[in-house]
Amino acid sequence: MKLLKSLEALKHKMTEENNNGILVLNNPNLTYLTGISGSSALLVLKDKNCIIFSHDVNYDFVKTHSKDLFVERVEPNENIFNKIVKKAKTLKIKNLTLDSATVEIWNNLSKDLGKNIKLKVDKSSIQDLRKIKSDKEVNQIKKAAKATIKGMQVATETITPGIKESEVIAEIEYAIKKQGCFRNAFETIVASGKGSAFPHGNVSDKKISKGDIVIVDVGVKYNFYCSDMTRTFVAGIPSEKQKKIFQIVTNAQIKAMESIKEGINASYVDSVARKVIEKDGYGEYFVHSLGHGVGLEVHEKPFLSSKSKDKLASGNVVTVEPGIYLMNYGGVRIEDTVLVKKDGIEKLTYGIRNFRAEKN
Amino acid sequence: MKLLKSLEALKHKMTEENNNGILVLNNPNLTYLTGISGSSALLVLKDKNCIIFSHDVNYDFVKTHSKDLFVERVEPNENIFNKIVKKAKTLKIKNLTLDSATVEIWNNLSKDLGKNIKLKVDKSSIQDLRKIKSDKEVNQIKKAAKATIKGMQVATETITPGIKESEVIAEIEYAIKKQGCFRNAFETIVASGKGSAFPHGNVSDKKISKGDIVIVDVGVKYNFYCSDMTRTFVAGIPSEKQKKIFQIVTNAQIKAMESIKEGINASYVDSVARKVIEKDGYGEYFVHSLGHGVGLEVHEKPFLSSKSKDKLASGNVVTVEPGIYLMNYGGVRIEDTVLVKKDGIEKLTYGIRNFRAEKN
Repeated sequence: MKLLKSLEALKHKMTEENNNGILVLNNPNLTYLTGISGSSALLVLKDKNCIIFSHDVNYDFVKTHSKDLFVERVEPNENIFNKIVKKAKTLKIKNLTLDSATVEIWNNLSKDLGKNIKLKVDKSSIQDLRKIKSDKEVNQIKKAAKATIKGMQVATETITPGIKESEVIAEIEYAIKKQGCFRNAFETIVASGKGSAFPHGNVSDKKISKGDIVIVDVGVKYNFYCSDMTRTFVAGIPSEKQKKIFQIVTNAQIKAMESIKEGINASYVDSVARKVIEKDGYGEYFVHSLGHGVGLEVHEKPFLSSKSKDKLASGNVVTVEPGIYLMNYGGVRIEDTVLVKKDGIEKLTYGIRNFRAEKN
Repeated sequence: MKLLKSLEALKHKMTEENNNGILVLNNPNLTYLTGISGSSALLVLKDKNCIIFSHDVNYDFVKTHSKDLFVERVEPNENIFNKIVKKAKTLKIKNLTLDSATVEIWNNLSKDLGKNIKLKVDKSSIQDLRKIKSDKEVNQIKKAAKATIKGMQVATETITPGIKESEVIAEIEYAIKKQGCFRNAFETIVASGKGSAFPHGNVSDKKISKGDIVIVDVGVKYNFYCSDMTRTFVAGIPSEKQKKIFQIVTNAQIKAMESIKEGINASYVDSVARKVIEKDGYGEYFVHSLGHGVGLEVHEKPFLSSKSKDKLASGNVVTVEPGIYLMNYGGVRIEDTVLVKKDGIEKLTYGIRNFRAEKN
């Protein structure tokens, strides 16, 4: 039996007692541990074979692509949780830990498992394993990042007064998808003018006007691994005020990236960027945290925020994305995805540091 | 105060007792009731103003775009559930109903609300309202559907031996996004050859071979409303066996669509398609249910399955998508999104019934 290293690591972390089980229900966790999509649940046991539960519709796919794991078929007329409860009883599991659960799933499992099987929820264990990326995971993020950079190059070559935001999205994604990264990590943002003052954008098919700030935020997947990159451009000649804000955000990103290395507090990195922006009087307009982990999800641990308890470690992949947002004016955000190393970072997205869109 | 009709309808459904509240946490439900994205929670009260809770990062957006609702800002150092609990106590709410909750949220709210506020979960009420689409909602689905048809036309013109699956995706999405539908409803599937035997596809950047069956499943959003359409093509001259399967699936879809009208059981419609496929000996290869509702989510109520308890009603928008999947051979699925009417259906996606891809 050859298991994925991720699954071996999880089994290794389980306590030595027999008859403990982890029931994985969260999709990115399932992909992390099985290497594929389409499973509905995974029962992980310390000393026994793990079992995938797959609904009928995906059974052939899961069975074909997970050849070293047992796969139980869930028929259309079966309830998957009934099946899991039956299996847990047969295996004489004593403690069952869920990686996630709605209150309905929790209530049903509690009732059906009975008093002899103790149920608990632990959201963190698998998420914490996922924080440290293997070389193989980093390589997939790099491929997504490379395609994203290509898309961003197309953005700066495309943005010009008169083109619609939605058309810019079409051009960016076409360039990326032609490179084989055919899944978005999130909905591409191309937000111009006053719309750029909203961090999550307000994309429409409105036309970009001359002098508009345009925030472009793009992320795609290679296999299951995400990238995340933002640049801000002006469709025309940047004004002095626009240039000033762009320079502050750029400085904040550079300082924050310079502060990253193994062992540093994530909250400290956030504070480095925040201080640069505060010093220039725009502190109240930096309305989100500095960054987040990137992997199977585009937002995952560790989080670079003032509240974060995380210490950064080698193998973390995080974004560094300061921003300034001025209501009824516009916003600037610059974001790169970086790999944390012992003494610094390796940038996975990079380049395209021009503010003025190239076509203008 | 001008509320959306959806929110008025929900308030109308609330019992007459004072001091009942509904706490909406589910994103599509939030969009349904507020008309926008970006809210984190909505507290709905029968006789008082409703309150949106919005995190700092989206506050300006939500505040600007939801002018007839009260918006509470959740600061970075605040916990949204603490804020909601405080508000519920101030408003002297007696019964608080959640539309969804993880077990952690449930446990925390139960503890913090104390004995005087009774908590319950009701997933169905808002989902049931969403089953009947207003004319405005149908019009948005129609716009998404129209762009999807255009994308499917590009698919049949693009598929040819030697082109990569990912390149076909790039061409389809480019055509759709240029029309202003810039958000995918789900990840486009272009699955060729043996990969087409998996209903959820197995897209890669492999090249399509001569004679391959190619399943193309596309859905996009107009504003927040989804479309969903599948066609199956052959990259070359279809074989007799391929033609036979295609014909059975086509017949199953036609018969099922003919059976739809107001008042019919959703499970009956499923059985109509299933019987056609069973009669020809392929019953065991139709491994999923016939269809699902389409709206703010691409899979929502009502479900057309053997287990469904739903009766179809005027204003439902559902897919009809029979399929036959033969392992190590290939699959055929044909899917349209239709509007249920009193005496039949209106097809929202339609056309492109050729089996042989046009370029071949």
